Amino acid sequence: MRIAIDAHGGDHAPAEVIEAVKRAARAWPEYEFVVVGQVDKMSAPDYENIQFHHTTEKIEPDDEPVRSVRRKKDASMVVGCAQVKNKTFDAFISGGNTGALMAAGLFYTGRLPGVDRPALAAIFPSVVGQGTLVLDVGANPEAKPEHLRQYALMGSIYATHVLGIEKPRVGLLNIGTEAGKGTSLTKEAFRMMHTEAAIHFVGNVEARDILTGVCDVLICDGFSGNVLLKNTEGVAKEIFSRLKQEFMRTPLTKLAALALKPGLQSFKGDMDYKEHGGAPLLGLAGPIIKAHGSSDARAFFNAIRQAIQFHEKGVIDLITTHLASEGAD
Amino acid sequence: MRIAIDAHGGDHAPAEVIEAVKRAARAWPEYEFVVVGQVDKMSAPDYENIQFHHTTEKIEPDDEPVRSVRRKKDASMVVGCAQVKNKTFDAFISGGNTGALMAAGLFYTGRLPGVDRPALAAIFPSVVGQGTLVLDVGANPEAKPEHLRQYALMGSIYATHVLGIEKPRVGLLNIGTEAGKGTSLTKEAFRMMHTEAAIHFVGNVEARDILTGVCDVLICDGFSGNVLLKNTEGVAKEIFSRLKQEFMRTPLTKLAALALKPGLQSFKGDMDYKEHGGAPLLGLAGPIIKAHGSSDARAFFNAIRQAIQFHEKGVIDLITTHLASEGAD
Repeated sequence: MRIAIDAHGGDHAPAEVIEAVKRAARAWPEYEFVVVGQVDKMSAPDYENIQFHHTTEKIEPDDEPVRSVRRKKDASMVVGCAQVKNKTFDAFISGGNTGALMAAGLFYTGRLPGVDRPALAAIFPSVVGQGTLVLDVGANPEAKPEHLRQYALMGSIYATHVLGIEKPRVGLLNIGTEAGKGTSLTKEAFRMMHTEAAIHFVGNVEARDILTGVCDVLICDGFSGNVLLKNTEGVAKEIFSRLKQEFMRTPLTKLAALALKPGLQSFKGDMDYKEHGGAPLLGLAGPIIKAHGSSDARAFFNAIRQAIQFHEKGVIDLITTHLASEGAD
Repeated sequence: MRIAIDAHGGDHAPAEVIEAVKRAARAWPEYEFVVVGQVDKMSAPDYENIQFHHTTEKIEPDDEPVRSVRRKKDASMVVGCAQVKNKTFDAFISGGNTGALMAAGLFYTGRLPGVDRPALAAIFPSVVGQGTLVLDVGANPEAKPEHLRQYALMGSIYATHVLGIEKPRVGLLNIGTEAGKGTSLTKEAFRMMHTEAAIHFVGNVEARDILTGVCDVLICDGFSGNVLLKNTEGVAKEIFSRLKQEFMRTPLTKLAALALKPGLQSFKGDMDYKEHGGAPLLGLAGPIIKAHGSSDARAFFNAIRQAIQFHEKGVIDLITTHLASEGAD
């Protein structure tokens, strides 16, 4: 197995990327790891299972996604996606420009047969269990009911085989729990998911219940999913920053904060995307994973672990078997 | 001025409603307050400016909105909305079934000329300033660009005259800050709001930035707005409940929690809807306010204050002047 990672993806690249790859090389000596980008080969001389794939260009965070991946043919992100397509790499991870990675995935890796729209799937922390896989969180701002049905099938397969959840419960993001609620999109998607044998559909889920773990996979259009993801991030950040202010207020509160620190750290860890790896792009013809832009070595390492599972469990084949056969009906 | 309030709206009705009305009657002895519902007149015998409007029916929390307000013609909520229409009441507040209140508002109070869709507007807490007015948070799950433009005009008028914000900054909820981002809805709404002189448009706003106060009025379709509202509520609730667990863990953390309590209470207060009154239904032919379902006397009192402002500042006339004149073009 050969797992590739973008040297230029994220705020702490390439240093934290290299560090993560070194850890991965030690953790899985039987696999090969490839760092893709403008990186000096000397950075990791002692690791036999680390390779460097040199490129001459890179996608910048502010690059216009579609145009940049069309023009910069030798950008690390473009090369990574193309090499997944031709099976030189078994998976590719990048912490770079999200829009550009989705565009590169579409143009250079391509869609799986039977998939209309690949979706970006993010793991939300939850109080009970191991979190909720939410898709789409922004690959396609608009969606049709059939797209949501496909997201549900792909999400179920990924949750079963990579997250290890037997018979994952699939919910539909909606503004009420009753069957007739929401927009024409959610009403029709509800009907389709309800009658689909391969989906263990538990019905509509309201945004206030996501963190309580009422479902393992949550389906929504990319606009709502992106709003959900960024809002969760924003509210948590705001509350923690206010907490910190309260802790620093007086000598007494500083002392009190010291006593609470271990517990709060573990709690903050539970809420932290770094523990959960990256966001897979489901529906592409190979495992492509978007790591968070502020990933450190630990987050990149978890994304690598996830990429290994993604490949090893044959998720791409499972999605193909399921969705392409439908198309042939 | 005569402000009416639903005796049956909310988890703590009618006791907390009556308590709030008593406080209001003392705070504004020059105004009249009307409790609408199946309430014993003897509950507040000493207040000359409190009246009781007896009704024989009520809308239950689980009633199907449209059907129940059509059938229960003598329900407190229906009577309240109808009496605003014929000017017997100058404003009406209810903490009951949100869908039913919107339906009763549409059927019995009616829309203002020039308004296609009334919107539900909720105040989100923010770190800086006095919060952000978000609309629509669920009156209409689907919206057209023209509806969003009207929401922006109504929200600006309300923010200026009721919230006291001079030249309120209006943002459009989107999945990126650049002009071309989002769905066909947000792209077209961006264009319309951008060219509208009466809107102080500050562009697209991402969900992660709402609580930092980047705009005073945030415009979105009712589906996204409802997701935003319930997700903010859910994330905050989850974090506070985890914090409480951490505080109770050991004798030492309990002691530490004691030292932090005053600061955290004030912070929790800032995040609390009870401080911010209710959610106005903008675009109806009279001031109708939805109070939170779990409102206590303080929350109902703040909603009453808000209703007084809503009427006193002539918001209904201002919206009419602005939107009806457009229709005449």
